[in-house]
Amino acid sequence: MAASTTAAMVVIGNEILSGKVADSNSPFLARELRELGVQLERVNVIPDEIDVIGSIVAEYSAAYDFVFTSGGVGPTHDDLTIEGIARAFGVDVVENPDLRRLIDGYAKGRPSPSMLRMARVPSGAELDDVSGASFPVVVMHNVYVLPGIPEIFEAKISGLRERFRADPFHLRQILVSEPETVIAEYLHATLAAFPELLLGSYPKLSNPEYKVRLTLESKDEGYVDRALDDLVGRMPEGAVVKVGR
Amino acid sequence: MAASTTAAMVVIGNEILSGKVADSNSPFLARELRELGVQLERVNVIPDEIDVIGSIVAEYSAAYDFVFTSGGVGPTHDDLTIEGIARAFGVDVVENPDLRRLIDGYAKGRPSPSMLRMARVPSGAELDDVSGASFPVVVMHNVYVLPGIPEIFEAKISGLRERFRADPFHLRQILVSEPETVIAEYLHATLAAFPELLLGSYPKLSNPEYKVRLTLESKDEGYVDRALDDLVGRMPEGAVVKVGR
Repeated sequence: MAASTTAAMVVIGNEILSGKVADSNSPFLARELRELGVQLERVNVIPDEIDVIGSIVAEYSAAYDFVFTSGGVGPTHDDLTIEGIARAFGVDVVENPDLRRLIDGYAKGRPSPSMLRMARVPSGAELDDVSGASFPVVVMHNVYVLPGIPEIFEAKISGLRERFRADPFHLRQILVSEPETVIAEYLHATLAAFPELLLGSYPKLSNPEYKVRLTLESKDEGYVDRALDDLVGRMPEGAVVKVGR
Repeated sequence: MAASTTAAMVVIGNEILSGKVADSNSPFLARELRELGVQLERVNVIPDEIDVIGSIVAEYSAAYDFVFTSGGVGPTHDDLTIEGIARAFGVDVVENPDLRRLIDGYAKGRPSPSMLRMARVPSGAELDDVSGASFPVVVMHNVYVLPGIPEIFEAKISGLRERFRADPFHLRQILVSEPETVIAEYLHATLAAFPELLLGSYPKLSNPEYKVRLTLESKDEGYVDRALDDLVGRMPEGAVVKVGR
């Protein structure tokens, strides 16, 4: 099986940590990446602090293939993501001439100091044009800098997504009418026979149709189908409500 | 001002990282903790892996007053939170006699091996009874071990919450009809005068009523009210749509 392409997400936002806003960007990105065959390994929600952003981005950039940041870009005092990423890579923050031209255009040649903050990037960063977006995405090595506003975050990820496509995950599901305590031993047995299987077991309370949803995944389609047959074959009679291939 | 009580949350769940389930426990906990005056500093979503759970719980337990874990408790192969927390503190996993009695009772004296997994705790852990819950919460030092199922997570947090109460945050809001680029300089000026102010600026796209929501917070009520007056006084005429005290 191919080694997985991996990713991590850093959500920069006091508004999320303080319960004012529920983050919808990480569930969106998790679904997109899964569909693309990319394994998301971390979602870390951290405060608007340059040192914290810097140390976590540095750690994740070294550990994973792609890093996505959400939030902390914009013209105000709490927009510290660019400074944090510069800190992560030990570089200065500089004005990018292409962004400067873009902002001059919006401001009809008279940008305010706070608008000019949005032309600043970590030294060495590149711009990735997203079709349909009015502002490019700043990319520093493998770190994609995205805004926190969900409409813009989603549009930019949708524009960029094909850059990240990897071998797909193949997903199968089993809905089971018995509780986890009854089926746990069958899961163990199937895992012993298929040690590379990604097997999830999700109990559902007060659902009239089933008690547990099992998910089986692999990047190898034949492998996941053999594991599925194995597990369905072990289940007690009547326990399998539905198999999703 | 009193030093803040701090917290971190560790969400253990491949199902969240793989986009199958959107985590609702962290937004719930963020709101509860804020209401209690507790400053949430991290929400980290990590995979079901003992080593990862161990290293992150160890780091957060040392850095913050309280740590909450969500998920990875139960009878199946992917329920590794107890092992991970034991790893964090360098202790063994042992059977807790009180949990064993409880499980024996549910199973009418004949628990399966997978049911008995739920009697296992890190050595030295304590049980915290939550009124109304059928199962106590396992607490290891300052780490509260909670299940991922939202109904149970929420019920247990609601039962425990008064244990965490600290000095409250006082929140004020201003809705503004101008964009961030226009008001950024006033925010800077108020922050220069009130450096301890927690000031958030949240643009809202396509909202007919306002363009930016500003939040002002402090544990010192007089301080936040003086900062609010200062900032409202700096705003251009007509920019303030609404002040929330």
